[in-house]
Amino acid sequence: MLEELKQQVFKANLDLVKQGLVIFTWGNVSAIDRESGRVVIKPSGVSYDDMKVEDMVVIDLDGNVLEGELNPSSDTPTHLELYKAFPNIKGIVHTHSTYATAFAQAGCAIPNIGTTHADYFYKDIPCTRAMVASEMDEYEKETGTVIIEAFKDINPDHTPGVLVKNHGPFSWGTSADNAVYNAKVMEQCAKMAYISLTLNPETKMNPLLVEKHYMRKHGPNAYYGQKGQQH
Amino acid sequence: MLEELKQQVFKANLDLVKQGLVIFTWGNVSAIDRESGRVVIKPSGVSYDDMKVEDMVVIDLDGNVLEGELNPSSDTPTHLELYKAFPNIKGIVHTHSTYATAFAQAGCAIPNIGTTHADYFYKDIPCTRAMVASEMDEYEKETGTVIIEAFKDINPDHTPGVLVKNHGPFSWGTSADNAVYNAKVMEQCAKMAYISLTLNPETKMNPLLVEKHYMRKHGPNAYYGQKGQQH
Amino acid sequence: MLEELKQQVFKANLDLVKQGLVIFTWGNVSAIDRESGRVVIKPSGVSYDDMKVEDMVVIDLDGNVLEGELNPSSDTPTHLELYKAFPNIKGIVHTHSTYATAFAQAGCAIPNIGTTHADYFYKDIPCTRAMVASEMDEYEKETGTVIIEAFKDINPDHTPGVLVKNHGPFSWGTSADNAVYNAKVMEQCAKMAYISLTLNPETKMNPLLVEKHYMRKHGPNAYYGQKGQQH
Amino acid sequence: MLEELKQQVFKANLDLVKQGLVIFTWGNVSAIDRESGRVVIKPSGVSYDDMKVEDMVVIDLDGNVLEGELNPSSDTPTHLELYKAFPNIKGIVHTHSTYATAFAQAGCAIPNIGTTHADYFYKDIPCTRAMVASEMDEYEKETGTVIIEAFKDINPDHTPGVLVKNHGPFSWGTSADNAVYNAKVMEQCAKMAYISLTLNPETKMNPLLVEKHYMRKHGPNAYYGQKGQQH
Repeated sequence: MLEELKQQVFKANLDLVKQGLVIFTWGNVSAIDRESGRVVIKPSGVSYDDMKVEDMVVIDLDGNVLEGELNPSSDTPTHLELYKAFPNIKGIVHTHSTYATAFAQAGCAIPNIGTTHADYFYKDIPCTRAMVASEMDEYEKETGTVIIEAFKDINPDHTPGVLVKNHGPFSWGTSADNAVYNAKVMEQCAKMAYISLTLNPETKMNPLLVEKHYMRKHGPNAYYGQKGQQH
Repeated sequence: MLEELKQQVFKANLDLVKQGLVIFTWGNVSAIDRESGRVVIKPSGVSYDDMKVEDMVVIDLDGNVLEGELNPSSDTPTHLELYKAFPNIKGIVHTHSTYATAFAQAGCAIPNIGTTHADYFYKDIPCTRAMVASEMDEYEKETGTVIIEAFKDINPDHTPGVLVKNHGPFSWGTSADNAVYNAKVMEQCAKMAYISLTLNPETKMNPLLVEKHYMRKHGPNAYYGQKGQQH
Repeated sequence: MLEELKQQVFKANLDLVKQGLVIFTWGNVSAIDRESGRVVIKPSGVSYDDMKVEDMVVIDLDGNVLEGELNPSSDTPTHLELYKAFPNIKGIVHTHSTYATAFAQAGCAIPNIGTTHADYFYKDIPCTRAMVASEMDEYEKETGTVIIEAFKDINPDHTPGVLVKNHGPFSWGTSADNAVYNAKVMEQCAKMAYISLTLNPETKMNPLLVEKHYMRKHGPNAYYGQKGQQH
Repeated sequence: MLEELKQQVFKANLDLVKQGLVIFTWGNVSAIDRESGRVVIKPSGVSYDDMKVEDMVVIDLDGNVLEGELNPSSDTPTHLELYKAFPNIKGIVHTHSTYATAFAQAGCAIPNIGTTHADYFYKDIPCTRAMVASEMDEYEKETGTVIIEAFKDINPDHTPGVLVKNHGPFSWGTSADNAVYNAKVMEQCAKMAYISLTLNPETKMNPLLVEKHYMRKHGPNAYYGQKGQQH
């Protein structure tokens, strides 16, 4: 079932390690087949060294396991909420990458203060609000809820990432691979924003540049890269 | 004598290097066989490149050498105090890993401000009090004493690590391997806490999240990972 | 056409990755043949893994493509402005290297506070002014304009690099290779300046040392290195 | 001439690269044969990739080249001053390692705030005073002079390193190899001190611990390591 997607999700999980975004089992990638509504996701707590493509778990959007011997990632309910709320996304990544997680712990958005950020994320990468006691029982599902709340006035297709307060980053994209790419960009932007802010707390972006840079890659008249290439 | 444990302790010492937790000879791992009360520990000042499994030293809980040509680690008396005071631990690690040592030098606990920390350490990782002149003669033994004092109101099984003021971190666990794992988690938590605190000195953890995260991995109804797996 | 120069530019682009100055496709190198006025530059948005020497694009100083199947780097107009304004430079590099980009985001020059900097950059590495709305249409060309403006009172041959505000660093030199070298030095100087400034905001350079160090490598009586060697 | 010492100096220079202490040609190691008063030193401005053991230059304590085709390191006069003033040292290293250089740029000593430091450096690692105009002509020789001045009340055998203001670190030891070791320890201590100080500007060492730690490795009753081993 969904062999190609499983292969993609498996490879994307290993790429998290190669990109220096996770240690141990601290991360997970999923992808969705929008036609069938089926989701492929990493199993819970399996080390990247031991993981095989057959270990990938296939579930439906209600979280029922359709294929696979292992438990799906404990963050599965968060992934499912996001697939349901953001109809264009096809891959989701969760990591504990160092700088993005540190911003999440500090409860600070990653501010859009440079073209590196603006090339991929149109707005500040928001940080979710603190959860309340009644949301703790279904923590992973409610994590999805507070993310969606943070995107009330933000288009998730143009700002494909978020920080969950006191927890860490989630990113998404047009595929598992693209979501990993965005996770790496987010970590690099978080690191550079940290250095800029501790050097000069008044650091601000020229709003004109945000428009320019996001649009030169993603707008209707995008001119970055080669024709037909996706960014 | 204790060939399997020696092999584990030897491998765990090399893992300190692989995980980037030590340079030169700056670290040591031990493990205890609770049945016989015998401890296997790294020899003192031997480089990781030259070390062989036969170099591991076997001692009893009074510090008498039972097997091995080399002197045991100079930190041996600290290890022994901890094995005697914390009956459930089976492995101990000492490193000078960068961020954890920097917190120890600064005399600051590593605050529990994120789920990465709460997944493995239930409380802030405490920093011991300054030692007084009369404690200097038996510095390594008294290091054990001040650690135990710091855990007067903390369960060491749930918060498996400590910072020794102006010195560096110790961690422990259910095996040598698990203690190395906790040493790596502590270093990563220290690094992320440093970034969070210098970005936002008001950084605080939502106490509800601490309960939730520690318990989802370690509580009676833990649901992280695969059935029968240890975390 | 210009096979040797293409080879140099290709290799210099790969060196950006080896030196840890770029991830993904975030950087570009060009070189000019001053005799013919032709410029060889990296194609836009092509990954370093897939790039071949034949992919290098040959253009004239007006930006007309003379050879090559792919679009030249979207930063081409910036490169061309600099080649026209700074007659002695023969190679240009653009990166998003971490610390230099963070200074650019913060709108701060990289101050000349040590001999490492003074050995290669005679003055502070300046940061360009913010652009205004009318400059956004031709952003890449105007990037060249604000760089040139920043060098009104600075000799670009002696200070071979600049930060573009809210964007990132450009460096140049006597060849593609030398421009990469200067990009690496700039990143290292930015990192060390960051640490110095956050440790002691009053950090200042002894102006006598600037003269001494730049001149011992680059002055008429330079005595660093071997005879006939270029620095 | 001095083939074994040349081999040691050659290897020690390459170790600077392996230990991550230098990039490009930014560092140099020398060693002295105390019996003949001859010094072996790295040639100036030669890349570590191309360097061969035969390139090492042999000089006397007045700086006369006794053997070797290449110019000796431009820092040679500094090395010679130190060999003349500190009679017990046998190897000297100069690097631009990141954190130590940043402390030097900031004009700050590396404070002794932890046992990692106290194990190898008895006192704070001092920073030299600013040089005055009359000292610039013979900059490298006068660098030696200001270092020696900084050690007026410090025993260089017990604190084997220094920061030259706005320049970078020098370290020394009982051999070329031991001087490289001390250069690595200094860099690691500088990094940890930076983190401690930015986390808690009030960071202080317990002076009792300094005595204890330095003496357990270097005092008359040293008990660290194996019998007959040198630290």
